[in-house]
Amino acid sequence: MPITGAARLFAILGDPIAPVRSPALWNAEFTRLGLDAAFVPMEVRAADFAAAWAGLAATRNLDGMVLTMPHKQAVLPFLDLLGPHARLAGAVNTVRRLPDGRLEGDMFDGEGFVAGLRAAGQEPAGQRVLQLGCGGAGRAIAFALARAGAAELLLSDTAPGRAEALAEAITAAFPACRAAAGLPDPAGQGLVVNATPLGLRAGDPLPFDPGRLSAGQVVADVIPNPERTPLLDAAAAKGCDMVSGRAMFEGQARLAAAFLGVAGWGG
Amino acid sequence: MPITGAARLFAILGDPIAPVRSPALWNAEFTRLGLDAAFVPMEVRAADFAAAWAGLAATRNLDGMVLTMPHKQAVLPFLDLLGPHARLAGAVNTVRRLPDGRLEGDMFDGEGFVAGLRAAGQEPAGQRVLQLGCGGAGRAIAFALARAGAAELLLSDTAPGRAEALAEAITAAFPACRAAAGLPDPAGQGLVVNATPLGLRAGDPLPFDPGRLSAGQVVADVIPNPERTPLLDAAAAKGCDMVSGRAMFEGQARLAAAFLGVAGWGG
Repeated sequence: MPITGAARLFAILGDPIAPVRSPALWNAEFTRLGLDAAFVPMEVRAADFAAAWAGLAATRNLDGMVLTMPHKQAVLPFLDLLGPHARLAGAVNTVRRLPDGRLEGDMFDGEGFVAGLRAAGQEPAGQRVLQLGCGGAGRAIAFALARAGAAELLLSDTAPGRAEALAEAITAAFPACRAAAGLPDPAGQGLVVNATPLGLRAGDPLPFDPGRLSAGQVVADVIPNPERTPLLDAAAAKGCDMVSGRAMFEGQARLAAAFLGVAGWGG
Repeated sequence: MPITGAARLFAILGDPIAPVRSPALWNAEFTRLGLDAAFVPMEVRAADFAAAWAGLAATRNLDGMVLTMPHKQAVLPFLDLLGPHARLAGAVNTVRRLPDGRLEGDMFDGEGFVAGLRAAGQEPAGQRVLQLGCGGAGRAIAFALARAGAAELLLSDTAPGRAEALAEAITAAFPACRAAAGLPDPAGQGLVVNATPLGLRAGDPLPFDPGRLSAGQVVADVIPNPERTPLLDAAAAKGCDMVSGRAMFEGQARLAAAFLGVAGWGG
């Protein structure tokens, strides 16, 4: 199926952009579905976001935009409508152009992560969770874990106050989940989640000390590429179960495709 | 060959965009060459050009932009360097990002048109030519016909003064070509060129009265889609030889690909 002049466009904006797996997955689906559509990667630096966004908003055949690091919060001022997950998370990963031209954003990182956990056979309900990283994706994941019934949520972030603010917001929205900020120590946790960008670039430090992991714990990573991160290697060496970023990524993509009106996804 | 996160991008900007044939041709070449690259159509209105351009300039993996109506002159203020054909024509159809980030534009409509004529077995050298339309593409075609050795160039445009200005510029650059503005009457001409957008949209009027055509004349149209325009139908009915916009389009694409550094184009 060639991409013609009548193609509908979708784009993912991020920096770095080369590691993102969405274009390959989406374009393979478009081919399978026989759609004249393209999903293209756009490498846009944080400082250039506003200019890039104005250009995409002016591109009339661009039906949807996906945001990845570092743009998930930067996009908020440019949207006309926010969906329920985006309002809670304060971040957006998917934007659609409505028939009247308005732009509506929502956030599927959290629901995609939980869907990925469950697809990998790991149920978050009742779990004690340590989560590293409380940025755009981290907020969404924490809310989704609380919504899914996690019993405890220990949040850790290197930015001062960030984990505390998220713990308060979780407690307000989901009082049944005991949320608190704390040190990045996995000892005693059932599920450990890396929601930081560490692992995306070769040579990144680990987000926490894996020496404190023990057999039987579940370690889930949000990094989709490489699928096997140094953190997951270290977890496996400790006898932990692993859930890779691919599981989250596939869950996200399915939810984003539904939001963007791509019928028949995953067929 | 899927489009991945590491894909290099190319875009064509225009309005209307659905009829452009470039995306299908370029993406087929990318597939044949095994390149991780995409050439996407972007529907951008004239009033939105500056915003759209700023966004594309900020997209770091976008290596080249192709301009079609109505943007071939609007892009001029946004470029750092102009090639020789663009300087003469006062219009640009292809822009490349240099390694230092500067944007260089050039214009291949004229040379592509002449290459298409020759590929169709029609030699412009020594010809008497009537050309309708003296806009961005029209200027480029007139200069290329003069450079190719056309003996006479009768130029016609509905915008007051436009044909006169182009005739003066042709005379200054190519004194051996007798260029003048005149009425759109094909009688007595060897080659008749439609360089107006008429024929792009169903229901457009013809650019001149085909009742004045006679057998043996050559009628060339710049409209690439539909390939067989109502003007070419009328010319065929009069016994004229025809050169469709596809010939020009293929010549343009080959020249643009070389400018954009796509090696191996066209096998």
